[in-house]
Amino acid sequence: MYIFCTFVGMNYASKYLENAVNEMSQLPGIGKRTALRLVLHLLKQPESQTTALARALVDLKTEIRFCKQCHNISDTDICEICNDTQRNKKIICIVEDVRDVMAIENTSQYKGVYHILGGKISPIDGVGPGDLSITSLVKKVEEGAVDELIFALSSTMEGDTTNFYIYKQIEKYNIKTSTIARGIGVGDELEYADEVTLGRSILHRVPFENSLKVN
Amino acid sequence: MYIFCTFVGMNYASKYLENAVNEMSQLPGIGKRTALRLVLHLLKQPESQTTALARALVDLKTEIRFCKQCHNISDTDICEICNDTQRNKKIICIVEDVRDVMAIENTSQYKGVYHILGGKISPIDGVGPGDLSITSLVKKVEEGAVDELIFALSSTMEGDTTNFYIYKQIEKYNIKTSTIARGIGVGDELEYADEVTLGRSILHRVPFENSLKVN
Repeated sequence: MYIFCTFVGMNYASKYLENAVNEMSQLPGIGKRTALRLVLHLLKQPESQTTALARALVDLKTEIRFCKQCHNISDTDICEICNDTQRNKKIICIVEDVRDVMAIENTSQYKGVYHILGGKISPIDGVGPGDLSITSLVKKVEEGAVDELIFALSSTMEGDTTNFYIYKQIEKYNIKTSTIARGIGVGDELEYADEVTLGRSILHRVPFENSLKVN
Repeated sequence: MYIFCTFVGMNYASKYLENAVNEMSQLPGIGKRTALRLVLHLLKQPESQTTALARALVDLKTEIRFCKQCHNISDTDICEICNDTQRNKKIICIVEDVRDVMAIENTSQYKGVYHILGGKISPIDGVGPGDLSITSLVKKVEEGAVDELIFALSSTMEGDTTNFYIYKQIEKYNIKTSTIARGIGVGDELEYADEVTLGRSILHRVPFENSLKVN
């Protein structure tokens, strides 16, 4: 409370400084104090750095498009992944957002395509099924363009709800569905794993020979 | 090392996204992962927010000036503090940077003016006396425009060195010099104070009546 009060009456000595701090502190996880530190840092750097940052931010909003097929970030109407002829378009991995695509792409283990929902059903945050790109996913299944759907949402209450909601809609089309494997992370110690994860990893154990097939 | 490697080959799906992340991660304390989070947040916000941020950053570099007298940040050639006729121009408080001015101004306890050095002497970081605005400070003293100099640099090796360097140069003019009081913070518990601070607070104890004069 005390620190908060101190900051309310902050004298920034310049309205341009104050403005920059206010705009910067709109970003998530950046408070006024951090914003001030960042802005004063920029002030010490050559003008080119600030201009490049400003330019990059403007370009971000004006130039970036979203793939018409999978809703991934893209510079073109159809993203690189959906355009890749080497990929199996009939296997679709459902993820929450772009970062999940990047994470999975980084593993180089997946050769199907994606479908980005843009979030998960969360009544508390005011996100309903209508706010997510579920209709276009169901349409893909309906058109018979899908062999397998991989659910890769986070295993939270919201993630599970979203999985179930989608599952109910595509159930009748009798396609293969799967979820990514949950278990003890590679290299993790058993004693530090939580009970739910450890329990599932025993229930969903895999044949030993499978574990030898790394990559 | 693993996380680092993972990020080097990150597939951003868009060169505009990658560019924005790279520029954002130039800021101190913002890594690629945080930069990505911030940039994806901006992507979800209305375009006006990004434009406002970009505009504020450009304005920052083009519009902000530094006060010709005290080197404080200012929208004008002479800053508000130096222009304030209510303030005693003959008492100068020497501080490292603009944030220190803001912190002291916030207390509303100081009615003199400031002199911002722009750092402290630190050979390790390649900062010598020539990189700081010491000459202009000595000139003020030389011209007889100063009654008292208050040293308010941080009490580190570098801060003490800088204080001493300045002191040596203005010693001969026989003006009053002081440093801000070091001691146990108001509201702090004695048992958690470090020995040096507690030791100094006993050595530099003040008459009890003084403690009654709060503000």
